[in-house]
Amino acid sequence: MKLLARLFGAFLIALLGVGSAAYAQADDGYDLWLRYRPIEARYADAYRTAATEVVVQGSSPTLLAARAELNRGLSGLLGAAPLVSAAPTRDGAVVVGTPASSPLIASLRLPLDKVGPEGFIIRSAQTGGRRVTVVAANSDVGALYGAFRFLQMIQTRQPLERVDVVDAPKVKIRVLNHWDNLDRHVERGYSGQSIWDWWRLPDYKDPRYTDYARANASLGINGTVLNNVNAKADSLTEPYLRKAAAVADVLRPYGMKVYLSARFSAPIEIGGLKTADPQDPQVRAFWKAKADEIYRIIPDFGGFLVKANSEGQPGPGDYKRSHAEGANMLAEAVAPHGGIVMWRAFVYSHELPEDRIKQAYNEFKPLDGQFRDNVIVQVKNGPLDFQPREPFSPLFGATPKTPLMMEFQVTKEYLGFSTHLVYLGAYFEEALKADTWQKGKGSTVAKVVDGRMFGHRLTGMAGVANIGTDRNWAGSIFDQANWYAYGRLAWNPEASSRAIAEEWARQTFSNDPAFVTPVVDMMMKSRETVVNYMTPLGLTHIMGTGHHYGPAPWVSEAGRADWTPVYYHRASPEGIGFDRMKTGSNAIAQYAPQAGKELAADEKNLLWFHRVKWDDKTQSGRTVWDELVVRYTQGVQEVAQMRRTWEGMKPYVDADRYEQVADYLAIQEKEAQWWRDACIAYFQSFSKRPLPAGYAPPAHDLEYYKSLEFPYAPGRG
Amino acid sequence: MKLLARLFGAFLIALLGVGSAAYAQADDGYDLWLRYRPIEARYADAYRTAATEVVVQGSSPTLLAARAELNRGLSGLLGAAPLVSAAPTRDGAVVVGTPASSPLIASLRLPLDKVGPEGFIIRSAQTGGRRVTVVAANSDVGALYGAFRFLQMIQTRQPLERVDVVDAPKVKIRVLNHWDNLDRHVERGYSGQSIWDWWRLPDYKDPRYTDYARANASLGINGTVLNNVNAKADSLTEPYLRKAAAVADVLRPYGMKVYLSARFSAPIEIGGLKTADPQDPQVRAFWKAKADEIYRIIPDFGGFLVKANSEGQPGPGDYKRSHAEGANMLAEAVAPHGGIVMWRAFVYSHELPEDRIKQAYNEFKPLDGQFRDNVIVQVKNGPLDFQPREPFSPLFGATPKTPLMMEFQVTKEYLGFSTHLVYLGAYFEEALKADTWQKGKGSTVAKVVDGRMFGHRLTGMAGVANIGTDRNWAGSIFDQANWYAYGRLAWNPEASSRAIAEEWARQTFSNDPAFVTPVVDMMMKSRETVVNYMTPLGLTHIMGTGHHYGPAPWVSEAGRADWTPVYYHRASPEGIGFDRMKTGSNAIAQYAPQAGKELAADEKNLLWFHRVKWDDKTQSGRTVWDELVVRYTQGVQEVAQMRRTWEGMKPYVDADRYEQVADYLAIQEKEAQWWRDACIAYFQSFSKRPLPAGYAPPAHDLEYYKSLEFPYAPGRG
Repeated sequence: MKLLARLFGAFLIALLGVGSAAYAQADDGYDLWLRYRPIEARYADAYRTAATEVVVQGSSPTLLAARAELNRGLSGLLGAAPLVSAAPTRDGAVVVGTPASSPLIASLRLPLDKVGPEGFIIRSAQTGGRRVTVVAANSDVGALYGAFRFLQMIQTRQPLERVDVVDAPKVKIRVLNHWDNLDRHVERGYSGQSIWDWWRLPDYKDPRYTDYARANASLGINGTVLNNVNAKADSLTEPYLRKAAAVADVLRPYGMKVYLSARFSAPIEIGGLKTADPQDPQVRAFWKAKADEIYRIIPDFGGFLVKANSEGQPGPGDYKRSHAEGANMLAEAVAPHGGIVMWRAFVYSHELPEDRIKQAYNEFKPLDGQFRDNVIVQVKNGPLDFQPREPFSPLFGATPKTPLMMEFQVTKEYLGFSTHLVYLGAYFEEALKADTWQKGKGSTVAKVVDGRMFGHRLTGMAGVANIGTDRNWAGSIFDQANWYAYGRLAWNPEASSRAIAEEWARQTFSNDPAFVTPVVDMMMKSRETVVNYMTPLGLTHIMGTGHHYGPAPWVSEAGRADWTPVYYHRASPEGIGFDRMKTGSNAIAQYAPQAGKELAADEKNLLWFHRVKWDDKTQSGRTVWDELVVRYTQGVQEVAQMRRTWEGMKPYVDADRYEQVADYLAIQEKEAQWWRDACIAYFQSFSKRPLPAGYAPPAHDLEYYKSLEFPYAPGRG
Repeated sequence: MKLLARLFGAFLIALLGVGSAAYAQADDGYDLWLRYRPIEARYADAYRTAATEVVVQGSSPTLLAARAELNRGLSGLLGAAPLVSAAPTRDGAVVVGTPASSPLIASLRLPLDKVGPEGFIIRSAQTGGRRVTVVAANSDVGALYGAFRFLQMIQTRQPLERVDVVDAPKVKIRVLNHWDNLDRHVERGYSGQSIWDWWRLPDYKDPRYTDYARANASLGINGTVLNNVNAKADSLTEPYLRKAAAVADVLRPYGMKVYLSARFSAPIEIGGLKTADPQDPQVRAFWKAKADEIYRIIPDFGGFLVKANSEGQPGPGDYKRSHAEGANMLAEAVAPHGGIVMWRAFVYSHELPEDRIKQAYNEFKPLDGQFRDNVIVQVKNGPLDFQPREPFSPLFGATPKTPLMMEFQVTKEYLGFSTHLVYLGAYFEEALKADTWQKGKGSTVAKVVDGRMFGHRLTGMAGVANIGTDRNWAGSIFDQANWYAYGRLAWNPEASSRAIAEEWARQTFSNDPAFVTPVVDMMMKSRETVVNYMTPLGLTHIMGTGHHYGPAPWVSEAGRADWTPVYYHRASPEGIGFDRMKTGSNAIAQYAPQAGKELAADEKNLLWFHRVKWDDKTQSGRTVWDELVVRYTQGVQEVAQMRRTWEGMKPYVDADRYEQVADYLAIQEKEAQWWRDACIAYFQSFSKRPLPAGYAPPAHDLEYYKSLEFPYAPGRG
């Protein structure tokens, strides 16, 4: 039937006299939020008046990129290419540049001291008797960011008559982490292969790299780690450095630096040494020489990201050295070139700890003050591993002498891969707004990340990318919003995730309020929905072991106990939950007292912090068991509601993107039901209690759910 | 510089007033040869007059597809959508249908008895006083093929005034073989992942599947084997059959049937049996039930492809049964449903044979007459394995009672992956035109394949697909020509590869003779060129072991001797080549005497059939050693010439496709040089002779070439 519908659609288009362009421009999502589709006729004239001419003063590659983007954007939005002039010749000119590149901008004496090296001012002005809009910055890349913002304003239908935008990023290092292997497999990738075509690099630079840079620059993302944190040393060999340099050449005009994940044992694997001990002089010499070589090949190389002594990766611990000793060795090697080291705090030792979630804090808190000043420690938002919900990591706010950068996972490893609609903006915001109480009320994680809490100047945010070769980049249209939200929050960790969602939806789909309001509502609710149907009430890490697809709370055997779901939920006939209070692992003590109090009292974290009996009462008045069933069921109902909402959006969305979202929502509902049924069947085997009245039993018995296997699930590590 | 050029290009486009469409319609190769770009103004009127109106009589999904394609094609070519009417209302109507679907076509009494179930007639006619072009067939799919041919005629600028085309496929089964794994890795794939998104199937049907079907239908390809011949039994489980059924639903309107590779040991792996012995009643019952299940889910399922007892795959030999016994068991299971079994002759036993290339003949020749009538044996073009040049397989013509289908490799496993420009049409034609002499002169391989030689009605040709998720499908623009050529030769094995190349180039790039002539010349020469720089004078299988990338004639250790280059070239201080004459393995005796005589006398096969001394004279008068050096060098020079030719084509090609081809040709030249230098360095270590005067020595010493490693080469098995 769908095929028929498609064919009839084509037939109608032909009848209506729409030519081949309609076929060629299938809306496949490739353009992301940079769609630049024609403005509605009733608004178009106002925008045409406000953007008659593009005047980019300066000729650096970055300013040329700004000019090209304005031409592309205005051509699409206004239906005709703007004039391109060297100086304003009429009202409505858009003047872009820096005081250094543009005498005109220099003459305006704008308060550019407010916007730092990467910020910009967009302001309506008069010059030479003409009304113009000025996009000014202290650097070319600031001007480029301003040009993108100007286009965003048109795309979201903001008035251009009296513009006065002053904006600058609040975080210095805003990077994507690609968990991309050299064979193009993406660990936890659900959107095709790695976009880095290592095989054809450096000789062939896919035009897609340029579009990647454009998309990132439009958000202010200023760096990218090209290879997986589970790194191969090969990426540090000369042939692969040449490949990375070719990528860097494409990204550079867009203000993006290239970083690499460094394998700690590279001195052995490619250096011919017998050790990687950070105190060994030969090892230190290896890294020094390697850094020098890298900077010869990539002069503006950003630095290293390191995953050490974690999940089998080598690290300084192999030589009884601390993370600080390991990080400082690398930092010393890149320091002369201005490079940095991002050292991940996601570690756990070979020995089974008393409570896995305590480990990062236990290892890194004592090292505070021991890191070089070009090291930043990269901390996942929660103490475990990107679960649908976790309390914030207790490391945030706990290391006054050590800058911490936030690591968010944009790819949805634990949240339904690319076929579940889950807007992570709300998730990220929850983490950033969490109050650590480390310097009293209002000591938010955002203030740790942007450096205000302890006055750090090296600040950063990393997003584990969801980008792949799928035509729509992210695997689904709504997953594009997660890339977008990550970028916007890296720019401003205190931004509103709802405002970001709206901005994205307007650019990606439609400015019609009949579309924007329900879709943004749906996005904002979607994160709570996935928590409901996967891990309500503070449950965690009960996904299928290894691939993390679907429910598998029954798994009790894996490489180690703290990889198994039963380790985390601890369900038994008596009750459920992990006691992390004083009576248990006392993980709660890693937080500032008031923060711990608030976290422990929040029912969202119930089973994370507490062990409870099945008949204990929850805030609703229902027992824990009944509440679990209610939440799981509610999750499924909410997805059904999302499907109905989306059906109502059909008039506002092109057929291809509408269908894809609709098909994925159908998958999400099916899988939400599976989650609910499997988890209820499993936990009921302990609770031995009936379902609340009116709640349907699982469709199958527990053995059925346990029997399901997914040997070809994508994204395995 | 290239980035600057790109930006300046954008700038110029904007200046010229070309709007956003220019950006959106980047020519990325996705449209293949179905581009339908506007006809040059000077020809457009004539075509507009000849195609004013589309009249498709009938409403089957296939006829709707024909109508949609004509609308799409004519809209693009003529700049406006044609009228769509139920009956001709004016001169220039294009009337499409079958006598059953269209009273008008029935009334014309066309000689449709000549074109069989899949052929078509395109003819200028008068009806009701109007001049029309009729596209008529006996079946809806024949009409669809005719519609594609009609569009091809316009795309190649053929006159439409007095059309009289009568055409029908000469081969019955025209299938692609996808060596695609269920995790989307493509064995020997150099163009991204598998287009089959098994993970999201059956719930999401990528619109790309429809475009795949369109492209194949445009060539007359009528089937596809979805999964790798190195098969997993999982593809025969119900969830995967549902996924395959979803693909079949998309392909069906385009006349394509779905086939699956069957793992011979599936009765054990998914049937719970202890054996896969074809004489075991339970095993037979398993396959019978499995076939019944498949046909319930996919009613028009085509049948099975089987790789058995080859490269570690299970097969009837594991139970001391013959290939015929294995094939017949499966054939019996699908026979009630009209299915077939394609049984591959690419086999070799666990024991090392005296001469690997003799094995397929030795195993299958004695089985002639033992196969059921719905079995067809699938034979690679040569007796070894898709090498740049091989003599034809001696099985062709040797099995009068057994139909053989040709297996060509469209993906360039041994011919430079996707970055070397090698037109395989010339390669395929060489194999098809080869004279087996089995029934006297003119007993060509083509006549075996199309069934004329022995009167077989079950005929077929398979092409191992080069299709993947790369935006341009095939990894490179010119690799699209290999898909095209395969399809056209499957339709008519006696077609001219030059004519096909021209047809393709006109549709894909330009009808300008200044483009067509040099590019077709370049394509036709390209196959001899790759032979020159890789394996001249009958050398074979000296590629890097495992990945088959680059030269590695020195490899002497692999899983087994007949996987190593040294097994094949046998170079020593005394000479080089494999003696396959009476004095050696006598493989020559597998051919009809006259065919053997001709093959052995052809210098192209010198080292394939003969062991020669370094100083033996070749036809040029040069020694074998000198001739090798000359040929290798010539190969490199020819690639350099291809680059110059392509540079001259810049005015005729859009920037993105021009650049990609140019960049790939640069890679090809670099790698041709590497091939030449590495092989000369290696063979010189035996010949101990100087290079002929004026020939440059290798750039590096032999140790350098031996030291190169490619752990991330794509496409590994």
